[in-house]
Amino acid sequence: MKILEQVYEGKAKKVYKTDDPEQYVVSYKDDATAFNGQKKGTITGKGAINNQVTNHLMKMLEGKGIPTHFIEEISETDTIVKKVTIVPLEVIVRNIAAGSLSKRLGLPEGTRMKKTVLEYSYKNDELGDPMINEYHIMAMEFATPEELNLIAGYAMKINDILTAYLADLGIELIDFKLEFGKLTDGTIVLADEISPDTCRFWDSKTGEKLDKDRFRRDMGNVEGAYQEVMRRLMGK
Amino acid sequence: MKILEQVYEGKAKKVYKTDDPEQYVVSYKDDATAFNGQKKGTITGKGAINNQVTNHLMKMLEGKGIPTHFIEEISETDTIVKKVTIVPLEVIVRNIAAGSLSKRLGLPEGTRMKKTVLEYSYKNDELGDPMINEYHIMAMEFATPEELNLIAGYAMKINDILTAYLADLGIELIDFKLEFGKLTDGTIVLADEISPDTCRFWDSKTGEKLDKDRFRRDMGNVEGAYQEVMRRLMGK
Repeated sequence: MKILEQVYEGKAKKVYKTDDPEQYVVSYKDDATAFNGQKKGTITGKGAINNQVTNHLMKMLEGKGIPTHFIEEISETDTIVKKVTIVPLEVIVRNIAAGSLSKRLGLPEGTRMKKTVLEYSYKNDELGDPMINEYHIMAMEFATPEELNLIAGYAMKINDILTAYLADLGIELIDFKLEFGKLTDGTIVLADEISPDTCRFWDSKTGEKLDKDRFRRDMGNVEGAYQEVMRRLMGK
Repeated sequence: MKILEQVYEGKAKKVYKTDDPEQYVVSYKDDATAFNGQKKGTITGKGAINNQVTNHLMKMLEGKGIPTHFIEEISETDTIVKKVTIVPLEVIVRNIAAGSLSKRLGLPEGTRMKKTVLEYSYKNDELGDPMINEYHIMAMEFATPEELNLIAGYAMKINDILTAYLADLGIELIDFKLEFGKLTDGTIVLADEISPDTCRFWDSKTGEKLDKDRFRRDMGNVEGAYQEVMRRLMGK
């Protein structure tokens, strides 16, 4: 396989075409941004950690029936994935109130939700990734009812699987963001990443934050937190 | 019936107890506020118009199978209603993009939505009436799934009825906000008001705004617009 020209550069990843029209290569960066790009920085080693943690979790999820875009890890920071058209939604799953949900509902951080909360944001930097609901998604034709139903079902199932998996490693899954893509044949698969950039992970015993909130909130030991997640998940 | 002490004062209405424990009196004010109370003013005659327009529309809706809190108009500005516990949701129905929906999705005002959009806000001044979705409503127990299903069904039916009714009067129904309440026996009924304060009405031919946007946006002829709505609906 040959890596060809870059087709996309996001805040944390670059995507390249390959000589196989159905395969892309994702390359993870150390660049970190927060608050819709208003805060910028670098987290040394983040690209390698997020790539390997994402692949580890996607392989685990595939084994439990969740289709993903993952094909093969080719270096510490690079992975071959299936070519998808991204559904322009951020799918956010929340078990415990934190961040924007705490602000929105006036709930102290750490409040356990009585039911799992699913939120959708329209992936649009210019508009600040606004929260939308199922009616907006239908009216804007971001997904069909069948696609959205499938996506919501996958998100809830992924939450169940990840929550249990991480609990065994002493990590509480507070909330996380998923993105889904469509293969050429229309199949919906999990895409993007699952990492300390896109999840809130709290140490089950101490409540210590092991995720990007350490960067957002200038809490220090950002690199150490990312390394600790990789160590617990992969023993390295 | 005797009117007793005030139980509530909102931005546009006061509510009084009566000697019948199942009946309240609503008294409409001329006070106008916008942007979560940041802009304040008076629209002369608004209280009388909104009271009478609301009652006219609620009677019409009752005739078409929508249960409401309306009992009897007792003066130009005052009405006896059934005592309800308000479900703490603003239910917003949108046919055409305007206001916050235009901003949220980057759609020019006047864009017809491909499907009717329903939005929910949590009625909470301190939090700025934040937009929420069905999952937040369930997790916060603002309504049961059955209640929310009923409310969404009523909102869509009210939209169909009002859109057709107003079209005959040369008014295009752009969007509107509803509130629902629960009677002592748990029955869900339409409450609050349906008026130029809570709806966007545009003249079908000229597109002229006949609603509170004239106040929000300092467009002038606010009183005239409210009077024109009453004239078209009630011939006075």
